[in-house]
Amino acid sequence: MEMILNMLTLDEAEREAFSRLVSPEEQRFFPEGKASPDKEDYERATIILGNPPTAALKDCRRLKLLHARSAGVDQYSAPGVLPDGAVLLSASGAYGHSVSEHMFAMLLGCMKRLPSYRDQQRTGCWNDLGPAKTLKDALVLCVGTGDLGSSFAKQCKALGARTAGVRRDAGKPAEGIDEMFSFDQLDNLLSRADVVALMLPGGAATNKLMGRERIMKMKNDAILLNGGRGSIIDNDALAEIMDTGHLWGTCLDVTAPEPLPPEHPLWKQPRAVITPHVAGAYHLEETPHLIAEIVLRHVRDFLRKTE
Amino acid sequence: MEMILNMLTLDEAEREAFSRLVSPEEQRFFPEGKASPDKEDYERATIILGNPPTAALKDCRRLKLLHARSAGVDQYSAPGVLPDGAVLLSASGAYGHSVSEHMFAMLLGCMKRLPSYRDQQRTGCWNDLGPAKTLKDALVLCVGTGDLGSSFAKQCKALGARTAGVRRDAGKPAEGIDEMFSFDQLDNLLSRADVVALMLPGGAATNKLMGRERIMKMKNDAILLNGGRGSIIDNDALAEIMDTGHLWGTCLDVTAPEPLPPEHPLWKQPRAVITPHVAGAYHLEETPHLIAEIVLRHVRDFLRKTE
Repeated sequence: MEMILNMLTLDEAEREAFSRLVSPEEQRFFPEGKASPDKEDYERATIILGNPPTAALKDCRRLKLLHARSAGVDQYSAPGVLPDGAVLLSASGAYGHSVSEHMFAMLLGCMKRLPSYRDQQRTGCWNDLGPAKTLKDALVLCVGTGDLGSSFAKQCKALGARTAGVRRDAGKPAEGIDEMFSFDQLDNLLSRADVVALMLPGGAATNKLMGRERIMKMKNDAILLNGGRGSIIDNDALAEIMDTGHLWGTCLDVTAPEPLPPEHPLWKQPRAVITPHVAGAYHLEETPHLIAEIVLRHVRDFLRKTE
Repeated sequence: MEMILNMLTLDEAEREAFSRLVSPEEQRFFPEGKASPDKEDYERATIILGNPPTAALKDCRRLKLLHARSAGVDQYSAPGVLPDGAVLLSASGAYGHSVSEHMFAMLLGCMKRLPSYRDQQRTGCWNDLGPAKTLKDALVLCVGTGDLGSSFAKQCKALGARTAGVRRDAGKPAEGIDEMFSFDQLDNLLSRADVVALMLPGGAATNKLMGRERIMKMKNDAILLNGGRGSIIDNDALAEIMDTGHLWGTCLDVTAPEPLPPEHPLWKQPRAVITPHVAGAYHLEETPHLIAEIVLRHVRDFLRKTE
């Protein structure tokens, strides 16, 4: 017998679809922000849908599947968080459009100096700030070419950019990426790209991937974006390097730590543009529906296989 | 015998190409910002390439052609500015990409609340400002579908928008516009569009086209853009209406007058985003070269026809 703890945000039709997966006594609904499972619920759970606090998972001895509502699941994939043998799935695919469009908006704004024009607007100042950049013929390097990187690359191409991608398996193509490379080509590519977009998951393998040396390898007037995890950039090094005048700008929707401490120098760097991890979340109406669709499909498959 | 006053910004190859049009004594070069023709030069001029002060044109009794370097030429098309029979040509086509990409950047930023996140950044504040908008499935209405409107529409479509256009001759299609309408459909379309992008020339026909009533016809959460001429919008009405909470936002690269006076309430309206007429100008490297190419082609044709 299953016990599904369903913590997703669902509309009526979606809740009905989930209800049809198992018998009524095998699933309990805890709509996000409205109800939470207790210790006993976690102890009985065989499947959890949503993002429970990691501390609660220590009670989940029967757990076979945790399907997160987020795309990043590094907090659950750390050793010892899930019971042995439990499967971890992410809602990768639900956020690609939302996050990529946000990062794309930040990039274009940075190219046109819109953040500085906004600063000027406060004082009613009509002052031309000089040359702008264009995506036309720019080389955009996507570090990470999953759902997010691929979606972002397609948007850049639509405005005339050339795109390159870096991924573990360079033999595997991705939509929107003109040329794919493996990670050992990263340093070489950094010195050629006009835009470097970090679209990677967090975790030990990507921690401070963009440290001082790699940031310095970027072209002096290039733009660095982070739409993946804050830990991928050494943010202290980035702030120091930007203060010397290196880089046209940087656009960060993620930082490490989050929130970025109010005293961090990146807040005051005029060429840095910071949004508080809002590119994904539920900021577009479509997102909870996309999550429900993905999770429903995966859970149905999972139940079929374990029958 | 011709006398061309060439006031364009040219590189060496371009200057050579212009030199080949006529014999050396029939053309004088006054590179923008470096030299200016005097009264006598204007009196002898048969062709002017560039944007001379309108006051200087009263001396141009021999003038047959004024080819502006700008896309908008309303200052020259007013009655009595040019001698009878003189031809006026604009550099329409040189700015479409530059202006449309700038307006597109403003629009996307507005959809993602980036101007408000920028305001927040000053205080080191990590605060989620709530739902964002997306171009996916949004209805974008381009009022004016020339080079600029068409280029803007294509960019919006690339991100999943549907596009409608309004032009004098609705039978004439434009690239990037899904459905074309005539101006008598404007009021009806305003109430349906998620984005209204004004991409029209100035002049009496478009003066305050968007007055109080038409702005009020827009959806409460729609976005109004002006990339054409400031005179197209009644900016005082716009400021008053926005203060009541109507419209998600407005993005203006042009105002009337310019500069927008420091005390104008639009400067302080947080949902208004203002840039100081910088979408075109020479903010992209490509622009002076595109102008040179267009003007050269037109002047060559003009000389051939009048031989």
